[in-house]
Amino acid sequence: MLERMSGRIIDGRKIAFEIQYTIKEEVSSLKRRYGITPNLAIVASGEVEGSKIYLRMIKNGCQNVNIYSNEYFLPGDASTDELIQLIQRLNSDKGVHGILVEMPLPEHIGVKEVMESISPKKDVDCIHPINYGRLLTDDALAPCTPKGIMVLLDKKNIELKGKEVVIVSHSITVGKPLALMMLNKDATVHVCHIFTKNLKAHTKRADILIVAAGVPNLIKEDMVKRDSIIIDVGMNRVGKRLCGDVDFEGVKNKVDGITPVPGGVGPMTVTMVLKNTIRLFKHQIVMQR
Amino acid sequence: MLERMSGRIIDGRKIAFEIQYTIKEEVSSLKRRYGITPNLAIVASGEVEGSKIYLRMIKNGCQNVNIYSNEYFLPGDASTDELIQLIQRLNSDKGVHGILVEMPLPEHIGVKEVMESISPKKDVDCIHPINYGRLLTDDALAPCTPKGIMVLLDKKNIELKGKEVVIVSHSITVGKPLALMMLNKDATVHVCHIFTKNLKAHTKRADILIVAAGVPNLIKEDMVKRDSIIIDVGMNRVGKRLCGDVDFEGVKNKVDGITPVPGGVGPMTVTMVLKNTIRLFKHQIVMQR
Repeated sequence: MLERMSGRIIDGRKIAFEIQYTIKEEVSSLKRRYGITPNLAIVASGEVEGSKIYLRMIKNGCQNVNIYSNEYFLPGDASTDELIQLIQRLNSDKGVHGILVEMPLPEHIGVKEVMESISPKKDVDCIHPINYGRLLTDDALAPCTPKGIMVLLDKKNIELKGKEVVIVSHSITVGKPLALMMLNKDATVHVCHIFTKNLKAHTKRADILIVAAGVPNLIKEDMVKRDSIIIDVGMNRVGKRLCGDVDFEGVKNKVDGITPVPGGVGPMTVTMVLKNTIRLFKHQIVMQR
Repeated sequence: MLERMSGRIIDGRKIAFEIQYTIKEEVSSLKRRYGITPNLAIVASGEVEGSKIYLRMIKNGCQNVNIYSNEYFLPGDASTDELIQLIQRLNSDKGVHGILVEMPLPEHIGVKEVMESISPKKDVDCIHPINYGRLLTDDALAPCTPKGIMVLLDKKNIELKGKEVVIVSHSITVGKPLALMMLNKDATVHVCHIFTKNLKAHTKRADILIVAAGVPNLIKEDMVKRDSIIIDVGMNRVGKRLCGDVDFEGVKNKVDGITPVPGGVGPMTVTMVLKNTIRLFKHQIVMQR
C-alpha cells in the first residue's frame, strides 16, 4: 500500500535531476570543444512571490550544470521602453546566449512589444511570435513550463493521443502553448480559466488535468476523476508553506499520478530553461563558425 | 413560425456582401489616392474538390471589390522546392501585394518550410509563424476562415466570454488558430478531432459548435444542444450537391442559429481574404512612401 501510494507521486525533481546530469555532460563537452561557457541572462521586472522562488531555482539549476547566469533587475515602475532597451542590449551582446524574461510582467508593461523585442535566436522561453508560431508544427523549441510538462508525461510513458486533457489556464506562458502542444499529440483538449462556468464539470472528465491558476486548493478531491493524472503548475505561498493549486493530500489517493509542489513541475521548468539555453547556444556557436 | 425558422439561419452571404461593399469603397479610394490596384496571387498545388470551389469563390470575390487576382497552378507532383521558388518569386515581385497558398497541400510537400517561405508582409492567410504567433495577443491579422467565423459571430452579437465553445478540427488552418482566438475572447474552449472518443458527449455541451471535419452529416440532431449556435465549416460534394459537416435539415429547428452550406462560412472566408489583402496592401504602400 505504501508503495502504491509513493508510486502515485510523480517525482519531477528526480526526472529533472537525471536530465540535468546529461545537460551537465553536454556543457562540459561543449566547453572542451569551443572554449566557451553558455551564458544565460535573466531579466526580472517587478516583484512577484512565485517569480522570486522560480528565479532562485533557475540560478541553482544553472550552477548545477555549469551554465553562467546573470540577473538583470528592473524596478517595478520601469517603463516598457526601459525594459526593451535592456533586452536589445542583451540581444547584441555576443557573450549572452540566452535571454529569459520573467513573466508575468507588471500590468503597465506592453507584453506584446516585449515579446517582439527579444532576438528569436536567444529566446529561451519561446515568447517571440516567430518561435511561438512554430509550435503549430514543431515543438523543438517550446516555452519552458509546457515543455517541462510534456517531457514529464513522456518520461512517465503517459499516452496522450485521444486522451481527455483539461488545462486550467489560458495564459500566454502556460495554457495557450500547452493546448497547441497537446493538440500536436492528438489529445482532445479542453481549456478552462477564470471565466469558465462550473469548472468541476470539466475537471471531473479529465484523464489528464493540468492546473496553472495560481489559486491554492482550487482543485479538490471531488473535482478529479479516479485514476487520472494531475499536473499541478501552481506555486503559491500560504503562510510559510509552498503549495500548488491542488489539494494534494485530499486528491493523491484517488488518482494514478500527481505532481507535488514543490518537487513537481517547477524543477522540470528549470531544466527546460537549461535545455533551451544549450540549444540556442549550440545554434549560435555553429552559426559563427 | 416561418420567421423564427428563417431567423435561425445565419446568412453568411448577406453579411459578407455588406462587408465586401465597404471593401469595394476602400479599394476605389486607395486607387484614387495611390493609383494602384491591390493584387492578390493565389498559389494552388494539387487538386482538392473543396479547394477548387473555394478558389472560384475567391476569384469572384476579388472581381466584386475590384482587386486583381492571379492564379499560379503547380502540378500535383511539384516538389517542395518548386513551390517555395514560386513563392519567393512572388515575395520579391512589387506588383504582388498578397499571397494566398491553398491548403491543404499535397502529402509530400513540407508544410512547415512552405509556411516559413512566404513573406510575412504578403501573408494573406496568416500562415507564417511570426504572424501565427501574434495571434496569441492580437487578432488583427488572422487566418481567413477562423477570422471569418469570429466576424460572423460578432455581427450576430453572439457573446463568447465564458461560453462553451466546441471546435471539431485541430488543423493548422482552422482548429488551432480558432482555439487561440476563442481563448483571447475568454471562451471555454474544447478541441475535438478524429482521435476524440465519444464526440457526441462533447458536441452536446456546446453553446457554440464549430465543425470543420470534412465529413458530410457528421453532426446530427442528437449531437447538438438545444438553442445553441452551429457554425458549419465543411464543404463537401455529395453527388452533385454541396453540403457541410452538419445534417442541416435535422439540426436547424433545434438550434438558435446555424450557418448553411453553401452561403455560411464560405463567403465570410472569402471576404477575409479580401480584407487581409487590403490590410497588407495598405501597409506596403505606406511603407514605400
